[in-house]
Amino acid sequence: MKKILFTSVFALLLGFHALAQSPAHKIVIQVNTSDTTAWHGVVRNIGNLQSALGPNTSIEVVAHGSGIGLLIGSKTTQKAKIAELAAKGVSFVACENTIRMNKIDKATLLPQSGFVPSGVAEVILKQEAGWSYLKP
Amino acid sequence: MKKILFTSVFALLLGFHALAQSPAHKIVIQVNTSDTTAWHGVVRNIGNLQSALGPNTSIEVVAHGSGIGLLIGSKTTQKAKIAELAAKGVSFVACENTIRMNKIDKATLLPQSGFVPSGVAEVILKQEAGWSYLKP
Amino acid sequence: MKKILFTSVFALLLGFHALAQSPAHKIVIQVNTSDTTAWHGVVRNIGNLQSALGPNTSIEVVAHGSGIGLLIGSKTTQKAKIAELAAKGVSFVACENTIRMNKIDKATLLPQSGFVPSGVAEVILKQEAGWSYLKP
Repeated sequence: MKKILFTSVFALLLGFHALAQSPAHKIVIQVNTSDTTAWHGVVRNIGNLQSALGPNTSIEVVAHGSGIGLLIGSKTTQKAKIAELAAKGVSFVACENTIRMNKIDKATLLPQSGFVPSGVAEVILKQEAGWSYLKP
Repeated sequence: MKKILFTSVFALLLGFHALAQSPAHKIVIQVNTSDTTAWHGVVRNIGNLQSALGPNTSIEVVAHGSGIGLLIGSKTTQKAKIAELAAKGVSFVACENTIRMNKIDKATLLPQSGFVPSGVAEVILKQEAGWSYLKP
Repeated sequence: MKKILFTSVFALLLGFHALAQSPAHKIVIQVNTSDTTAWHGVVRNIGNLQSALGPNTSIEVVAHGSGIGLLIGSKTTQKAKIAELAAKGVSFVACENTIRMNKIDKATLLPQSGFVPSGVAEVILKQEAGWSYLKP
């Protein structure tokens, strides 16, 4: 009996420890608009988040639907900033549903782009994993 | 003393069990725009969510404000898709505040529509109950 | 050993107690648009939230980017309603990044305005503290 209790409490403490080791802030940003002013806003938001929340912050930008252009070399207005932010650890992921539906050649995407099967599902999965949601 | 501890741990385990039985994914989607492109996007998003996350997923669409038209027979552009998704278990609920304020006859709403006293409060209550939030 | 376990369970119960004392509902509303129809919608949403969720509800409106005008005396269309809602305990906070970037004189903001270093970080910090997120 005592052993079971001890194991329970130990598991609980292990959980707290794991929590303490994870990033202090985790943010998923959804981009589903072709509005380049909004794209500029996203990049500015990320800078502000990094300044305000410090280096122990994970940020993932999910581009899907009309927002996929943010990550297409010939369409994005934020090429230099995305390269700079990605070098600092910000993730940029493109929705493979959107890519397939719009017959986009993956080679036309920025080299910093990662991929997720579904952008909208990614936004949900991140929230389920404790990430905060930002719709710019 | 031992009994109290045993009860505490037992209650905790019961809680985990209940958690394990609930839907794997719970998503509340807020629609408050009359933009029919956005309505089309919502329906496409739901299809993508279902494909990506599997059948053990609960989805509720909350239509309020300018978004109420999504559920009005004479205004919606998604009649057939809503019937199809509702048959698969997706919930569509209309905001009774919006209905009252705009003197909408409930009989003009799609037969698949449920009702909530306040659309905006529903979005909050669902988040409080652990649902992820999606603003398309 | 028993003492450690007792302390653990006691700490857990204290936590539950603290939870029970906090507001029943906590909502952070992000305003980053200059669209005055959206501003009107926010004010109406707050009224609906208060009616639906009752007095034990904390609401904070974060104005940043193009949304800062909501709190500028010469630009806002919701002066009277903001005074009324603030008197009832709703918080309105302005983003100091936006204020600095746009060289806004703080004296031009509504007297009900509070300030946060970064509007977008505030939206994240509130979510991390268990507040529900609303993007109107």
